[in-house]
Amino acid sequence: MRVTTLANGVRVVADPAPGYETLALSVAAGRGARQEDEARSGWSHLLEHMVFKGAGARSARDIVETIEARGGSVNAATGYERTSFQVRSLADGLQLGMEVVADLVLRPTLDPDDLEREKLVVAQEIAEAADTPDDFVFDLAQGAAFADQPLGRPVLGSEATLAGADSASLAAWRARLYAPDRLVVSAAGAVDEDELLALAERLFGAAAAAPDTPFHPAQFTGGSVAQRRSLEQAHLVLTLPGVGVTDPAYFALRLFAEALGGGMSSRLFQEARERLGLAYAIDAYAESYQDAGMLGVYAGAAAANAGKLAELVAVEILKLAEAIPADELARAKAQLKASLFMAREGLAARAEQAAAQLLAFDRVLPTAEIAEAIDAVEPADLARLAARLLGERRAAPAVLGPAKALAAAERFERALFG
Amino acid sequence: MRVTTLANGVRVVADPAPGYETLALSVAAGRGARQEDEARSGWSHLLEHMVFKGAGARSARDIVETIEARGGSVNAATGYERTSFQVRSLADGLQLGMEVVADLVLRPTLDPDDLEREKLVVAQEIAEAADTPDDFVFDLAQGAAFADQPLGRPVLGSEATLAGADSASLAAWRARLYAPDRLVVSAAGAVDEDELLALAERLFGAAAAAPDTPFHPAQFTGGSVAQRRSLEQAHLVLTLPGVGVTDPAYFALRLFAEALGGGMSSRLFQEARERLGLAYAIDAYAESYQDAGMLGVYAGAAAANAGKLAELVAVEILKLAEAIPADELARAKAQLKASLFMAREGLAARAEQAAAQLLAFDRVLPTAEIAEAIDAVEPADLARLAARLLGERRAAPAVLGPAKALAAAERFERALFG
Repeated sequence: MRVTTLANGVRVVADPAPGYETLALSVAAGRGARQEDEARSGWSHLLEHMVFKGAGARSARDIVETIEARGGSVNAATGYERTSFQVRSLADGLQLGMEVVADLVLRPTLDPDDLEREKLVVAQEIAEAADTPDDFVFDLAQGAAFADQPLGRPVLGSEATLAGADSASLAAWRARLYAPDRLVVSAAGAVDEDELLALAERLFGAAAAAPDTPFHPAQFTGGSVAQRRSLEQAHLVLTLPGVGVTDPAYFALRLFAEALGGGMSSRLFQEARERLGLAYAIDAYAESYQDAGMLGVYAGAAAANAGKLAELVAVEILKLAEAIPADELARAKAQLKASLFMAREGLAARAEQAAAQLLAFDRVLPTAEIAEAIDAVEPADLARLAARLLGERRAAPAVLGPAKALAAAERFERALFG
Repeated sequence: MRVTTLANGVRVVADPAPGYETLALSVAAGRGARQEDEARSGWSHLLEHMVFKGAGARSARDIVETIEARGGSVNAATGYERTSFQVRSLADGLQLGMEVVADLVLRPTLDPDDLEREKLVVAQEIAEAADTPDDFVFDLAQGAAFADQPLGRPVLGSEATLAGADSASLAAWRARLYAPDRLVVSAAGAVDEDELLALAERLFGAAAAAPDTPFHPAQFTGGSVAQRRSLEQAHLVLTLPGVGVTDPAYFALRLFAEALGGGMSSRLFQEARERLGLAYAIDAYAESYQDAGMLGVYAGAAAANAGKLAELVAVEILKLAEAIPADELARAKAQLKASLFMAREGLAARAEQAAAQLLAFDRVLPTAEIAEAIDAVEPADLARLAARLLGERRAAPAVLGPAKALAAAERFERALFG
């Protein structure tokens, strides 16, 4: 895939795929909630909502009607390190999609009345997340893992921090967040590379530069949180430090998580669910930011089993850290590589992945190169990584549920570190 | 797509797709929780869990390890009218996937100790669903819509009904549920049709016939349910009768739901969220079974807004029932047709859809035929359908949330029927 950089820094990448009748477009800014200080928490997400209320000459209704009238859809997502605007459409929809997204990203109206109404909508989104235990417990763990840092605060912010945003401050925030040298235009499927380039030049080539917000390195502080709630189940998210996307041990971390709890043949699924029946849902994941990360396990369990389950997770982490059997590493590698291929079959994932890689690595990684990097990981790499992460002697367990489940957080830490 | 029927009734369909490096296999039985009387509620889902505990000569661990070791995955899902076993794998995984699934479907071990342990796992799955308000409110609405019928009971069953299942009764249930004349083998992607046929013949060709459970027509009874729970938000599912998949008005129903609340340009999204800020999430859907269906709206809203929102949904349904503007119908058609194309880009969806169509219509519907059927719907068809559904004067609203939200269910019915 060839990457073209416009004069103002906007990068453009096309991934044309024969045989597809539709396309996916992703315009992604390599900034997000991680840029927010405490007072601005949630502003990036609020801004992403607000651009849909009016942009360029388009009303809120026009923005979506013009795309949906032709069978397309437009969406957006705000993360800690990336904000993406995504269009799915039939093959003839590239120009329209690009024009609409250019308005959203560069010329949002940010009307004050709309802003006050949208704050109420986001308040409901915050309430909806709080009502969903297996969402909320992740927020708790994130806050414990990265205490007093942007990565530890919810992307949605809070009613209090959103109250401080007005049209002028959001406009200034937009200029920084979506500045052209942090912006990528990526399209996959039924797209013509020349057409995409010409559109990008015309629609994004004149976007004005803006100073970046300062970069603050992230620090996995650790911490333990146990919150009582009257629920049928206990919900646990048990995390350890991980590594960032550019860390040489990145794939070792992914493979560790895969072997630990990545599929039905993983250690946690086999032990906790199949052998002991301690949980219905249990899985492990690796989350990596630019310079930091997490290894995490989510589980839902009967309150009476929560402590036992947390201990089992700690024990399995320690066992895997000591030595990973060759067949388990081979299986983790096969799983991770296959998921690469399968992800490439979805156009939306394909466009988004190219954008994410450009933003993280300044280039698009060929699938074969990723597969080679995965294959190159040795058992000793996993052992070294695990020793390094456990050596920090920090964890961030979060438990949400009935009172008798709450000791599980402490039991996890005690089983890990004595 | 050519459909081959084996001597014992098993149907086989292949959808080879050039350019794909992976495949999706779906072995689907056209039966599910709808076959269960009250005492057997949840048995189909429990059986689907149990086959993974051991089948043929394979242990629980072997079943998943053998597939996952080569980068594949195996899953299953139980619905009211269909139970599916799905494999995703690289191109070389067809034979292994078929062999494993044949064991799961035809030769599960159903060990009594495993069964008792698995009942505890399903109990946790039931508890997890109860903890998730935007899952649970759908169960409430389903129960109100189809009171005292299998379609009104949760697919998961209850601890009480699962207690009644033993190995022998599950074995008998399996023979009926997965009988060959209700079974479809469907594969898409990097598959060879001749290989698939040969494998199906060898692995499923000798499966023994079994009498079917009797078919009881479904009846949308209607009913109202309001359940108090201490939550941040009120969660609403507001339903009306719909039509079955073989009803001539099927696509009119789909288009009605699409226009009502299918995208960001839909009436409900524009009115409830964009103009009034009454909800963060709101959307409409059509659910169709063989002979019955539902038109539904889900919304999450602040408790104080729930009543107003329910009334607004009723008013928008009535307005749309009177007349649908040409541009709104055109947009709904474009959306529905585009979603057809996009769904075909995912191999798992493609294999599953072919299986579902064979089970429902005894043939696979060409995409072009579906697109034509959608195009043929006239505004008068929607008006006629709406008059028919509203004419039943039955609704099934469900509200879950704080006390002051609970009157919303009644307000919905009053606004609809006076």
